[in-house]
Parts: sequence; structure tokens; C-alpha cells
Amino acid sequence: MPQLVMKFGGTSVAGVERIKSAAGRIKHEVDNGYDVIAVVSAMSGRTNMLSQEVESISPLFDAREYDVVVSSGEIQTAGLMALALQEIGVPARSWQGWQVPITTNSAYGAAHVIDIGTTLLNAKFTAGMRAAVVAGFQGVSPENRVSTLGRGGSDTSAVAIAAAFGVERCDIYTDVDGVYTADPRLVGKARKLDRLTYEEMLELASLGAKVLQARSVELAMRHHVRLCVRSSFNDADGTLICDEEEIMETNAVSGVAHSRDEAKVTLLSVADRPGIAAAVFGPLSQSLVNVDMIVQNISASGRTDLTFSCPVQQIRQAEQCLQNLKESGQVNFHSLALNTEVCKLSVVGIGMRSQSGVAARMFQALADYGINILVIATSEIKISVLVDRKFMELGVQALHDAFGLHEG
Amino acid sequence: MPQLVMKFGGTSVAGVERIKSAAGRIKHEVDNGYDVIAVVSAMSGRTNMLSQEVESISPLFDAREYDVVVSSGEIQTAGLMALALQEIGVPARSWQGWQVPITTNSAYGAAHVIDIGTTLLNAKFTAGMRAAVVAGFQGVSPENRVSTLGRGGSDTSAVAIAAAFGVERCDIYTDVDGVYTADPRLVGKARKLDRLTYEEMLELASLGAKVLQARSVELAMRHHVRLCVRSSFNDADGTLICDEEEIMETNAVSGVAHSRDEAKVTLLSVADRPGIAAAVFGPLSQSLVNVDMIVQNISASGRTDLTFSCPVQQIRQAEQCLQNLKESGQVNFHSLALNTEVCKLSVVGIGMRSQSGVAARMFQALADYGINILVIATSEIKISVLVDRKFMELGVQALHDAFGLHEG
Repeated sequence: MPQLVMKFGGTSVAGVERIKSAAGRIKHEVDNGYDVIAVVSAMSGRTNMLSQEVESISPLFDAREYDVVVSSGEIQTAGLMALALQEIGVPARSWQGWQVPITTNSAYGAAHVIDIGTTLLNAKFTAGMRAAVVAGFQGVSPENRVSTLGRGGSDTSAVAIAAAFGVERCDIYTDVDGVYTADPRLVGKARKLDRLTYEEMLELASLGAKVLQARSVELAMRHHVRLCVRSSFNDADGTLICDEEEIMETNAVSGVAHSRDEAKVTLLSVADRPGIAAAVFGPLSQSLVNVDMIVQNISASGRTDLTFSCPVQQIRQAEQCLQNLKESGQVNFHSLALNTEVCKLSVVGIGMRSQSGVAARMFQALADYGINILVIATSEIKISVLVDRKFMELGVQALHDAFGLHEG
Repeated sequence: MPQLVMKFGGTSVAGVERIKSAAGRIKHEVDNGYDVIAVVSAMSGRTNMLSQEVESISPLFDAREYDVVVSSGEIQTAGLMALALQEIGVPARSWQGWQVPITTNSAYGAAHVIDIGTTLLNAKFTAGMRAAVVAGFQGVSPENRVSTLGRGGSDTSAVAIAAAFGVERCDIYTDVDGVYTADPRLVGKARKLDRLTYEEMLELASLGAKVLQARSVELAMRHHVRLCVRSSFNDADGTLICDEEEIMETNAVSGVAHSRDEAKVTLLSVADRPGIAAAVFGPLSQSLVNVDMIVQNISASGRTDLTFSCPVQQIRQAEQCLQNLKESGQVNFHSLALNTEVCKLSVVGIGMRSQSGVAARMFQALADYGINILVIATSEIKISVLVDRKFMELGVQALHDAFGLHEG
């Protein structure tokens, strides 16, 4: 029989009633003739509770034991979901990472999947099992210990399983009913997208549209797993994330993303010599500062200004790191200008590759509202700008209008 | 290095602070030169929460999935305990049932241990591990699925591990500091026993002294595992449960046990013919009535009265079963007399085997307070009586005094 992966996130299994409701969705697909592999997260709140217990016992914890503790939440959901399925007549059983097995490397806390066995599950499907409920987020390491894939790792579990079994589709059930042209809380006219390419979803995922973990989208792209993001609270169609070939025609821009809490750091009057960027960004990376956009002005004087952005929570680390570089003489600059009141706006679209004038239209739309652009960065299918945070909502709406995204 | 098993029950690991405190006790024994195998229960309350979730999803649940869900509580404690040990400098790691492995049969929900592997843990001890934290209550079945040993099964886990590793002693840490000559809540002068034989402990365990699961005591007796019951809240010595040879001299009676919620059922005027007992007690057993004491009067007339006791909660089942037997003509009796207001008092002692007059002294002590004995049952090391429940406290005190148990 054809197989389907259905992944249920924490809010979709938060409590007994929601587990029963999710079981009903699985039964529906079983009745449609699919053998279902359901991948489940921990009930929402449980992983946080467990990781707080870990940290209150051992702030610098052994990741191997952290994994043992937090992975227990998904085990609970898997067992309960299997019971809920049996209760409505679906032959089902639960599977833990070591039982499937889902083999990972030994990077406990953020392990990567190495291999997924299909033999045992497929034998059970052949013998009459109609739903395998797999505990998400977890695997087993070469040392035969429990490993976890890092936060949000159940998405990755689902996609990796979908790839290994070569299923028709991987449905990601969550608390939103798809991917929107913009955050509906900011843009009333935001429209749900029917289809989106992996590349676009990746840009949106990393830009703050918190629908899917970027890593799981990458994995889906590499293995051509068709992902469908849909709501577990209604029956709407959801958004299909797939190869470009499956999408007939496309607008220049598919969506507008925003990231609220950004900071901008400028090193004023830096000695402009080869290797200076490495001298700055190497140590910042070691200080765990996630540098995002980087702009360096060309200078004639031999001195220049170097600007970058990072999450606002990391601004103190960044400042400390840069002052240390200055004091130790490794980087020569006059002073630092910090701005913690900025945000990032981005337009994303695979169509941008073949259509020109997107940047101009974006800049004009912002200019029309008097929104000053502080920093610009572009990729093949994305243009991002930093602007003052007070303009965030206005900017997102202006861009959504300018590209006619409410029209579809 | 010599090895020790230390088992911590639910109240001894109820929350982060108690886990840390238990870890301190383990470190103390490690510092004394022991390699420790710590067996842990779920934090108190967690197993109940999980089993309620199971039952609210599936009242007649698949025991295999029930085991998956409820065994997760011990996994959490094992991971947290390993972290707490590492935090105070003890090289430790957690072990789940399938990792040790603790192989059981396939009687999910109430599995029996078949084999415990010692190779992996001993190799880790040789390599420098000083504490192995084993999740109690769980094992792995021949089908490679998680099994549990039934309620209170962590005691059984601990004793089975102690037997397999041939350790010096198995310490059971709980919320009482040992086994007493009587329930201290009823008898102010009750005294903690230093030593007790397995046989005595078995009688006390099944008589309602809720310190240890009877099954774990049986297992300890069979494998000569020295058990020590002690408190995780103070440093008192506890009670050692061991072979008779280790106990120098002993009183006729070691302790007085009571069981509050008993019921007495009398079948009046039963046709006294061969096979009648089987005809009554077979069906009662199938109706899940736990019949305890049985008394049948010898009759000359060909009719007799048959009395038995059972837990008071099972009285309706028993009544229903017996009425059915009467109506279907399988058992011929005149009527039923039910008494749900009785309790059981017992004196237990290995010394009873060699000392006479114990029963006489017991009956006299009760008679001195005007306590009427309804039913009597005896074994080699125990004498039990049913009396009206209102005499329970008085009866226990009278017996405790009569055998001078406060004197040691």
C-alpha cells in the first residue's frame, strides 16, 4: 500500500483530547488506503519542563543524559497515540528511536540522522499494521545510547523517515494552516500559499516564519520529499512545499518575512587591509554571535566603516568581543556604533531569478512611506533590508501591497 | 571493587532537591569504595499521571503501549540522577531496561525478569564508571519491546539486579526508616527491628506492612540477597532482611501486622460434600476476588457453614459470584452473611516454630480486652485473626504489649 508520513507537533498532541483528534486524522488517511507512519512530538510544555529539571540539577549538563531525559516526552505521546488509534480500530503500535532503528551520529543534543531502518516497520505493515507511531526528535547513537536531534527535531525525524521510506508525501500538522504571504498578525490581507519551493521555504524559515525548522526543509529538498504544512485544527488544504518543477507559474515575490529583534553594529574608521573581515568575524563567531548581514563601504582613504547585524540578545557578547580585539591590537578601529532598535524585512521569491526590478520596487515602496533603509543584503531569491524597528509593521504591509501578494 | 545496589523509591526522588540528596547518598557509598548500581523509581505522582492519561484514552488498553507510556517516568529519573551524580564528581550514566539489558518475558504490565546482562555494566565499571543508574520497573521483552514489572516493580528490579551481580547488599531507600514491630501510627512504643528473616518480611509484606513488595522479598529469599530497608530522609541504620543464619537469637514474635479493610463472608448451611470448596473458590478466583482466610466447620448433619475473608472492596463481586452459583444450582447454600466491618490482626515470628504457647498468649491478650475472635488462620510463622474493625487499634496494642515487643 502507498505510505504517508504524518507529523504532529506539540500543540497538536497537547493533551488527551488533541491526541484523540490527531488519531482521527490518521484513521482518515488509513481509510483512504495509506499505511501511515505518524511522527509525534512531546505534548507541548513537557519538553520545557524536563529541560528545566535537567538545568536545575546540572547547568552544564552531560548532553547524553539530557537526551535521555527530554526524549521521554515523545515516548509518552507515541504510546498514547498508538492507544488512541487502537481504540478507533486502527492496528497501530509505537516505535522508539532505538526500535526502528533511527541511527544517528554521537552529537548528543543535536545529532544527525545517519540511517533509518525500513525492514522492521515494513514487515509489520505487511503483517497488518496500518499505523506506526514513531517518537520524533530521537534516535540511537553508535554507542547504543539515546540521542536527540535538537529543538524542533521532530520535523527532521519526519522528513528523514519520509525520505527513507520513499513515501508519497510528508504532512506536517501544526497550529497554523499553512505558509502565508506574510505574518497574518501583521498583514490582515495575508494569503495562504498553495505551493512554495524548498528554496523559498528555506529563506522564509531562516527569516523568522516559524513554521518549519530550516534543517528539515533542507533535508526535504535534498531528498525531494514533498512536504505539506497544514493545521491539525481545521481541514484546510495547507501549503505544499515541493520542487520548482511542480509549480506552474510563480510571482516574482512569494512572501514577505520579517525578523523583529535585530541589532546593527558599525565599526567606525577601520583600517582597511586584507584579512580585516576575517580578523573581525572569526572571533565573533567564536563568541557565538550569529552575524547575519554584512556591509563594508569601499574607501579611498585607507579607512572604512564595517557594519553587520546580529540578534539583539547577542549585542553584549558582540560588543565585548570587539572591544577585546581593539584592546589587544588585533583590529584597529575608532569606535563602535550600536543600534538595537532595528528589524529586518525581506521579500522572497523563486521568480526573482527571472524577473528584474524587484529590488527597485521594494526600495520605492519603502521610500513612499518615508522608511529609511539602513543596510541591504541580497541573495538569488531574496532581498533583505534593515530598517528602524518602529517601521516594521508599516514596512511589511507596504511590501505586501507593492507586490500585490493579496491577489494570488 | 565491591558492588552495592541502592534503590530509591518515588518519594525519595520526588523532585530535583530529593534527587540531589539521593545522589549525595550514592556518592557517600562510592567514597566508601563501592561501585554502585542505583535503581530508581519515577518521581512520585508521575506514574499515576501517566496511567491516568492512558486510561482516559483507552480504558481497556493494550498493555504493550501502557508499558511504553508509564516506563518513561523512570527514564526521566535515571537521566536526572546520572546528571546529579556527575555534578558532584561521581562518574555515572543512566541505563534503560533495553540497554542493560534486563530481559523479561512478554507478560506486559506484569512481566517477569528472565535474565540480566552483567557484561556491559561491568565493562563500564572496569573503565571507571562508579555509579550505574538503572531505570527501575522496566525491561525489554523477547519482541524487543519495553515491558514493565507491575506496580512497585522497582523493588523487584533492584533485587533481581542485586542477585545477577552478586552484590554485597541491596539497600532499599524509602520514606520509612525500617521495618517496625507494629505500625508506629497505631503503637507509640513500636520499635524498629534491626534484623528480620525473609520469611517474616514476606508475612509482614503480604499482611499490609507496605514497606516492600512481597514479590521482591521472595526473589531476595531465593537468591539470598541481603536487603536493607532504610530512610532516604535520615541516617538511621534501617532494617536488614536476611537469612535466618544471620540472626543470632530471636523472639517468638517479631512483629504485629494489621490489615484494616477486610470483609467476612459466610455461606450458611452449605451442603457438605467433596468438591464443595473447589466449587466455591474456583469461581471466586475467576471473579478476581482475592480470598484470604478460609474456615469450614466440621458438621455432623451433612450441612456446614463456610466462612472466608477478602478485601472489603471486593465484597460486591464476591456476593454476585456466589448468588450466581446458587441460582445456577452449582452450590447449594441457605443464605449469605456478610460483614464488612472487620479487620485482620497477625503476629509474625520465625521463633514461633520452636516456641509453643504463642497462639494461647495471643488469644488471651485479646480476650483480656474483650475482643472477640471471628476467624483464626495460622501458618508456620504467623497467626492471624479477624476481629471487629473497631478493635483494630486496641488489638494491635494489646498484642504488642503481650509479646513485649517494645523491649527488643
